[in-house]
Amino acid sequence: MNPILANPEITTPAFIIERSVVRKNCDAMREKAQRSGVVFRPHVKTHKTAEIARMQFGGGTGPITVSTLAEAEFFADHGFDDITYAVPVGPGKLERAAALAKRIKRLNLLMDSFAALQAMEEFSVRQGTRFNVFLKVDCGYHRAGVDPESQEAVQLAMKMANATGVHFQGLLTHAGHSYHTHNVDEIRKIAKQETSALTGFQNKLQEQGISQLTRSIGSTPTASVVERFSDTDDVRPGNYVFFDVFQAAIGSCDLSQCAVSVLATVIGSYPQHRHLLVDAGALALSKDAGPDHLDSDCGFGVVCDLNLHRLPMKLKVLSQEHGKIEAEPDVIAKYPVGTRLRILPNHSCLTAAMYDVYHVVENSQLLDQCRPIRGW
Amino acid sequence: MNPILANPEITTPAFIIERSVVRKNCDAMREKAQRSGVVFRPHVKTHKTAEIARMQFGGGTGPITVSTLAEAEFFADHGFDDITYAVPVGPGKLERAAALAKRIKRLNLLMDSFAALQAMEEFSVRQGTRFNVFLKVDCGYHRAGVDPESQEAVQLAMKMANATGVHFQGLLTHAGHSYHTHNVDEIRKIAKQETSALTGFQNKLQEQGISQLTRSIGSTPTASVVERFSDTDDVRPGNYVFFDVFQAAIGSCDLSQCAVSVLATVIGSYPQHRHLLVDAGALALSKDAGPDHLDSDCGFGVVCDLNLHRLPMKLKVLSQEHGKIEAEPDVIAKYPVGTRLRILPNHSCLTAAMYDVYHVVENSQLLDQCRPIRGW
Repeated sequence: MNPILANPEITTPAFIIERSVVRKNCDAMREKAQRSGVVFRPHVKTHKTAEIARMQFGGGTGPITVSTLAEAEFFADHGFDDITYAVPVGPGKLERAAALAKRIKRLNLLMDSFAALQAMEEFSVRQGTRFNVFLKVDCGYHRAGVDPESQEAVQLAMKMANATGVHFQGLLTHAGHSYHTHNVDEIRKIAKQETSALTGFQNKLQEQGISQLTRSIGSTPTASVVERFSDTDDVRPGNYVFFDVFQAAIGSCDLSQCAVSVLATVIGSYPQHRHLLVDAGALALSKDAGPDHLDSDCGFGVVCDLNLHRLPMKLKVLSQEHGKIEAEPDVIAKYPVGTRLRILPNHSCLTAAMYDVYHVVENSQLLDQCRPIRGW
Repeated sequence: MNPILANPEITTPAFIIERSVVRKNCDAMREKAQRSGVVFRPHVKTHKTAEIARMQFGGGTGPITVSTLAEAEFFADHGFDDITYAVPVGPGKLERAAALAKRIKRLNLLMDSFAALQAMEEFSVRQGTRFNVFLKVDCGYHRAGVDPESQEAVQLAMKMANATGVHFQGLLTHAGHSYHTHNVDEIRKIAKQETSALTGFQNKLQEQGISQLTRSIGSTPTASVVERFSDTDDVRPGNYVFFDVFQAAIGSCDLSQCAVSVLATVIGSYPQHRHLLVDAGALALSKDAGPDHLDSDCGFGVVCDLNLHRLPMKLKVLSQEHGKIEAEPDVIAKYPVGTRLRILPNHSCLTAAMYDVYHVVENSQLLDQCRPIRGW
């Protein structure tokens, strides 16, 4: 039993981080990057805290990836001075980006269109700023990025290389379609697409005289299943620090590597209806349906006891402050009103974002409380 | 055009409240309660701000309903002194509830089991506190509450009436199954269930000598479709202040009554793939799939221009900071990178909870910024 989690001073629902698991996850990914000889530029959007970003580097700081300018500014304030903002930047945010770029060693921005390049060029003329930019490349996810097989992509890259308003740094892709897989073999195939899309495009651009481009990849599924990183220069996984039920379902990790859970209290027991209620609802867990392409029927998370042993229960419905868990009457009888349970979330990034404070535990001790940056 | 929403000083994504629409929604519901002669005890969990709670009363304060103790404490600090905490209270929260009860006129708690009653009785003996309690009744939603037809429910009510540790105040139900309907006629049927479940149970208890129980009902769908409230004493709708795409889909309101939207910027345009990207993802909108029982195919919200005119676009995919909107190439061409759009959320309660600050606008003026209470 984990006595600290039974302590009523931790109000439920609460977001609990197992530090030893985070440390293992962090060390494994960092060591893989080191032995592969690539730049390790982990994403920090999953946790958004300075404390855990430092754990990603085994203490200290290093190059990071962020998903909002608010994160970029927060981490800059905490000594992280080499930052990639890995979402295409809207023209209305260039002024804030320029102010940030002035106070750190390096800020990399992302673009994938002539329109975005033109906006940056015009900004550059007006403000005398020259941004470091990556060209976003679509490796098959089809969310953002240029098609590396297209002539237009080559033309945009050439225009970026010749632009006076930007420093063209490299090619960046995100293999988000690795989340739509069913197993490790399928993830491995996508990991190949991810690197070959960039390397093929890099070669094509080299023929046009554009050289020294950095290739940047990153998704937790692909980064988790490869033995080592090859055909790339810079890697940006993020979710791996916590992992979650989704990642376990597709094979990026197993459930024992899930480092975070939501602590909840049973507030209602209805054996006649084969369900119980906990005080962790949609605001405590987020409403991510999980890997529904798998028919895994995991519901809105995996229900465990305080020792993180999985229970024969299904979290089927979330309303704002209620979680409805289905179980057989004999199981329900063992967890009366007042009992605390732990729920492994489907999507740790979205669940973490519901909390102003995280509780960090290890060996049944509450070690720390840390506060993420929020908003945009 | 709404020029304030084009102003880059409002960073996107942003949560925008149309004050005139909120005021109309608030006035209509309050006036319906007044002419029905019932106590109006609106829920504040949708917005969680003192400013909008005062609008629910046309200025000033009044009796309210909350979904967390953090809300209860916050609203007590803002002069609301008659509060129903409408989630079954876990035994670990009784101490905090008792501290709050001491500093306001009235705090009503909820219970639906012998176990919860026993926990309160024991607490009462130890601490000398006597809580005001409502018995939660299941009117067909089957989430929480006692079955009013059961003998056990009568026994629990009798035990509550005779308990020295609690003041038995009344019967409370929530017709959450009104959200699973397809149209106004179906909602009206559930509104009848909601009141008849309480009134029938009240009559049964009166035969047992338990009288003067308050009947409390509340759900936005049922409260919106009835002409007036009858067969009840106390009403607790909440979502009606903002409404949302879900409520419009089932017939509680129409889209013009939706008072909140997420302001977003186009950050990518891919006519060849028939989609564009906005900077409002799962953290800006929440990931509520909406009324999927209706096959309404509304996606993750309704996409509008700055004047809230609906556009022929579908918000199909949300990742953490990206929203992927499908549209025909000729439509996409009209909304280039940098354009701002507004998205009516599926579920305004969950979307509001993603923001630390709300922007309140009226007649193209930014009137106010208000900050909700968060957490538990």
